[in-house]
Amino acid sequence: MLTREDCQDLDAQDPLCGRRELFDLPDGVIYLDGNSLGVLPRNVPPRLEAAVRNEWGRDLIKSWNTADWIHLPQRVGARIAPLIGAAADEVIAADSTSVNLFKLAAGALKLRPGRKVIVTEPGNFPTDLYVLQGLRDLIGDVQLRVVEPAGLEAALDQDVALLLLTHVHYKSGRLHDMAALTARAHAVGALAMWDLSHSAGALAVDLNGCGADLAVGCGYKYLNGGPGAPAFLFIAKHLQGDFKTPLSGWMGHAAPFAFHDEYTPAPGVLRGLCGTPAVLGLTALEAALEAFDGVDMGQVRAKSRALGDLFIDLALERCPQFGLGCSRDSAGRGSQVALTHEAGYAIMQALIARGVIGDFRAPEVLRFGFTPLYLRYVDVWDAVDILADVMGTEQWRDPRFHEVSAVT
Amino acid sequence: MLTREDCQDLDAQDPLCGRRELFDLPDGVIYLDGNSLGVLPRNVPPRLEAAVRNEWGRDLIKSWNTADWIHLPQRVGARIAPLIGAAADEVIAADSTSVNLFKLAAGALKLRPGRKVIVTEPGNFPTDLYVLQGLRDLIGDVQLRVVEPAGLEAALDQDVALLLLTHVHYKSGRLHDMAALTARAHAVGALAMWDLSHSAGALAVDLNGCGADLAVGCGYKYLNGGPGAPAFLFIAKHLQGDFKTPLSGWMGHAAPFAFHDEYTPAPGVLRGLCGTPAVLGLTALEAALEAFDGVDMGQVRAKSRALGDLFIDLALERCPQFGLGCSRDSAGRGSQVALTHEAGYAIMQALIARGVIGDFRAPEVLRFGFTPLYLRYVDVWDAVDILADVMGTEQWRDPRFHEVSAVT
Repeated sequence: MLTREDCQDLDAQDPLCGRRELFDLPDGVIYLDGNSLGVLPRNVPPRLEAAVRNEWGRDLIKSWNTADWIHLPQRVGARIAPLIGAAADEVIAADSTSVNLFKLAAGALKLRPGRKVIVTEPGNFPTDLYVLQGLRDLIGDVQLRVVEPAGLEAALDQDVALLLLTHVHYKSGRLHDMAALTARAHAVGALAMWDLSHSAGALAVDLNGCGADLAVGCGYKYLNGGPGAPAFLFIAKHLQGDFKTPLSGWMGHAAPFAFHDEYTPAPGVLRGLCGTPAVLGLTALEAALEAFDGVDMGQVRAKSRALGDLFIDLALERCPQFGLGCSRDSAGRGSQVALTHEAGYAIMQALIARGVIGDFRAPEVLRFGFTPLYLRYVDVWDAVDILADVMGTEQWRDPRFHEVSAVT
Repeated sequence: MLTREDCQDLDAQDPLCGRRELFDLPDGVIYLDGNSLGVLPRNVPPRLEAAVRNEWGRDLIKSWNTADWIHLPQRVGARIAPLIGAAADEVIAADSTSVNLFKLAAGALKLRPGRKVIVTEPGNFPTDLYVLQGLRDLIGDVQLRVVEPAGLEAALDQDVALLLLTHVHYKSGRLHDMAALTARAHAVGALAMWDLSHSAGALAVDLNGCGADLAVGCGYKYLNGGPGAPAFLFIAKHLQGDFKTPLSGWMGHAAPFAFHDEYTPAPGVLRGLCGTPAVLGLTALEAALEAFDGVDMGQVRAKSRALGDLFIDLALERCPQFGLGCSRDSAGRGSQVALTHEAGYAIMQALIARGVIGDFRAPEVLRFGFTPLYLRYVDVWDAVDILADVMGTEQWRDPRFHEVSAVT
């Protein structure tokens, strides 16, 4: 068992330790929820204020040109690209993950005419399933084949247009083998699409190395873009020319300011744009992504695995009340850990009251995320120390920790 | 002809004159482009900074509950509702106008099963046409009937599911008769949907008084929500129970945090939500809407008509080089004026260089918007005075005014 001093030594040797000062971490808090909402980067408030006061307030409409607002979606996309193994001209930031899922799933069906099946798994992040259901109900002639991971290979046949999976499971943190599953989809002529919401910024994602066709992901988790930040989408270069979005808004037009009546898609990934870009959200996300400048994603992944292992080792040793709801082996896990307990909701509320912020996912998962850019080994040690105290003293039995909030 | 002094007198008597101080108008600028991007309200920067530093930075994930982020879409929608003649529970703020157009047009087809036709007009704002084309191309069995306004009545028959029109035309400012056209759509059993992008916040829109079924609109024009602000959508109460969105993301689910695999729509207009709300953009828009607190939209409309009339009278008198590209009668016009000139682009650039900001819409329209909350009669007088000077001295012939920007 590592001691607190051992953890301090690990922090001193951590090649990423300098990144922590880029973030404005609140006092008295150990934040293990960066997988839900990333911490505020210090450069965001001044950058956003300048955008509001100078670009919007002073320069107004001229800022579309002078502040280059019009290219924000591709500028931000190009910053995300190296974090996910994509080329700069394969990624744009726009809309929400849900909206982007719809665009790409619908586009995939058009890229594989005659095929009517989309394969995914039960228990996927709900919005992925809901969006597929909405697409099916709109089009009609589409079948969703929702199968457990063990059955995925058998579910892939010549009728399948698209395999859509979330790379890291939102609740268990289970990590899919992107390269192997993409290859299996390709073997039957299907496309593979990956939801990177719980992996972008925390893992060394390699979309092009895995031959992935399409991907979406979230801007407000490990990318630290702020609450409800714009999401991103990826379209592999070789598919861009044939890709058709159903959400063919004016910003994805080849000449939006020509105001033609007929839609002509913009070249490349830009055709994935729809409406006017959300300038304030994109500005915050663009600034936030600077925290990744020069970062080796291999180091991020290595530290993420080590932090998760440390948390599991300490928590299972000191808090035998918990089950483990994720892979013990960090190779099969994203940057999060799931502990299970039937009183999970109340325990998490008690923990939050003590300054250790994780979250709860029904029916029994306490979810802890580990963001390598701003978390220290000593934070993990301290978090488990508080968790052990909450469990030992049974603080969580206090009725106030059982009141349910709108958002859990 | 009114003199500058007459205009000062009009300003002194203007019941809306006190609203101007709520906005941070840049020095040396007469801003006639609030129909493209509204001016920064003074309360937005401090509100946004508090949201960034306190809600995001300090309270982090807890702010979904403590700052009630989760209800931002309906809170902002409820603020927009009285400006457009809707009930508070008929409007939400979310996504972009383009995305909302798709949701509602697709939803309208489901509400009128068996009907395959959507009627709209050529020269509608391009995104409206493009989104309909994208929806048609996705579904297949849908026909777009694109007819000139004079032919709209004849185009409405028993095959029509939806009539989609923009209330105020983006270029000419032409104002449709919402009540009459909605009634004609209803007479054949079709639904009527209105794009309020160029009318919400500038006109006394009366959706429920006109019996409108569906509507969308823009947050960054007359509502002053900032560049790329979230848009809004309206679903009439009696349709909400049957309305199905194709973009069935988790935030439109009846129980988003139950994480069920099957989509169940939320009650009421909330089912129009899709992904995670854009908290920063919604926060700016929510603050901006306070400028409308207690405003009589009838007074707004009356001043808007008067400002437009004044501009036309002065401009046509002093600058005979221009044609008029909009209705001379303010009853048929939104809150904008179109002058036409074959060198329109260069003239607008020269005018902008002199501090009068309007915009250009190809091939020959100089577009001027009049925002009654922050524009004075004397601003209109001064703007025309500068325009007359630009034309008299032919400043616009300078080659630098002919260089084309990315965004016009």
